[in-house]
Amino acid sequence: MQVPKSRIPFCPACGSPTKLAVPDGDEKMRAVCSSCGRVHYENPKMVVGCLVEHDNKVLLCRRKIEPAYGLWTLPAGYLEVGESAAEGASRETLEEACADVEIVSPFAQLDIPLIGQSYIIFRARMKTPSFSPGSESLECELFALDDIPFDSLAFSSIIVTLRMYIEDVKAGNIKFHYCTINKRIGAGPSDLRSFDIDNHLAV
Amino acid sequence: MQVPKSRIPFCPACGSPTKLAVPDGDEKMRAVCSSCGRVHYENPKMVVGCLVEHDNKVLLCRRKIEPAYGLWTLPAGYLEVGESAAEGASRETLEEACADVEIVSPFAQLDIPLIGQSYIIFRARMKTPSFSPGSESLECELFALDDIPFDSLAFSSIIVTLRMYIEDVKAGNIKFHYCTINKRIGAGPSDLRSFDIDNHLAV
Repeated sequence: MQVPKSRIPFCPACGSPTKLAVPDGDEKMRAVCSSCGRVHYENPKMVVGCLVEHDNKVLLCRRKIEPAYGLWTLPAGYLEVGESAAEGASRETLEEACADVEIVSPFAQLDIPLIGQSYIIFRARMKTPSFSPGSESLECELFALDDIPFDSLAFSSIIVTLRMYIEDVKAGNIKFHYCTINKRIGAGPSDLRSFDIDNHLAV
Repeated sequence: MQVPKSRIPFCPACGSPTKLAVPDGDEKMRAVCSSCGRVHYENPKMVVGCLVEHDNKVLLCRRKIEPAYGLWTLPAGYLEVGESAAEGASRETLEEACADVEIVSPFAQLDIPLIGQSYIIFRARMKTPSFSPGSESLECELFALDDIPFDSLAFSSIIVTLRMYIEDVKAGNIKFHYCTINKRIGAGPSDLRSFDIDNHLAV
């Protein structure tokens, strides 16, 4: 019989080995410290980013880091403790595209349960029209909506965000979107045909 | 001189002590393992919940657990790895109010940077009009909007959510909201006058 392994094998509080167990009043297996008894939960991470609009174009960055090296993305990254999603999205845009932006409105939340991520994307605009590649970008460029390189986008979340955005712009009604991206197990992060969309809405 | 302490004192991967250091290419102090060198980040947690609507009323639960024992809240709790925010919000509503709901629409995202939380609240409705207190609730009750016990709500996030909801209902236009709740340092979670709201929007 195979014993399942914890993804938190050692207790971050005291350094002792954990074991997988279902705590009292819980229903799921958790990493429980064999010494101090603390229970350690795994929670999804928020990825925050900006859809920067300028002259009917949007700002994309070509990744200088793995995963998806060389592919195009919106400036985005993990939210940090101590900042709001809007602040984190602006910070990532400054880091990756050297663009100083202000937030226009929330645009989308895209959950990806399989990898424990939730993307929060804001519409934003540059305070002054200036940008250049940060240390994690090969280049940054403004793309007209008809010229977006859909075959060279880095992640399913970016494909979905830009598709929704183009649809909204064409309809003349840019609104907030919530959906879940269900990746197929084993699919790569940039496999264009490896996901389904669920908007969860009953109406 | 006081040496700052890590909030992740031991490496979850190998159990060795961590030290606080600024990794190459980073700008912030992180918990870095003194043995295997792994860097451990702290990320905000998502709290997901439902604003359940029924006959012009909303469903509240009175907490049977700390913090805020005895005070009223929307059914909500930490999002788990492997579920979407909408699924997590429905699960929490089933657990805390024994109500089987379907999601109507996203209603609000409220970030609370000081405590590293982001609330994601959905409008929802019961598939059948049935509810009862779950193991973490003393009682559950439908409240007309004029009868919401604002003096006995559990958290600032719940106060803000319900205020925005009442305003939207009165205006006849229920829309999605994004804002940050800036708690004043040292304020309790249910101190009614301990926070400011920032909607981050430039327009």
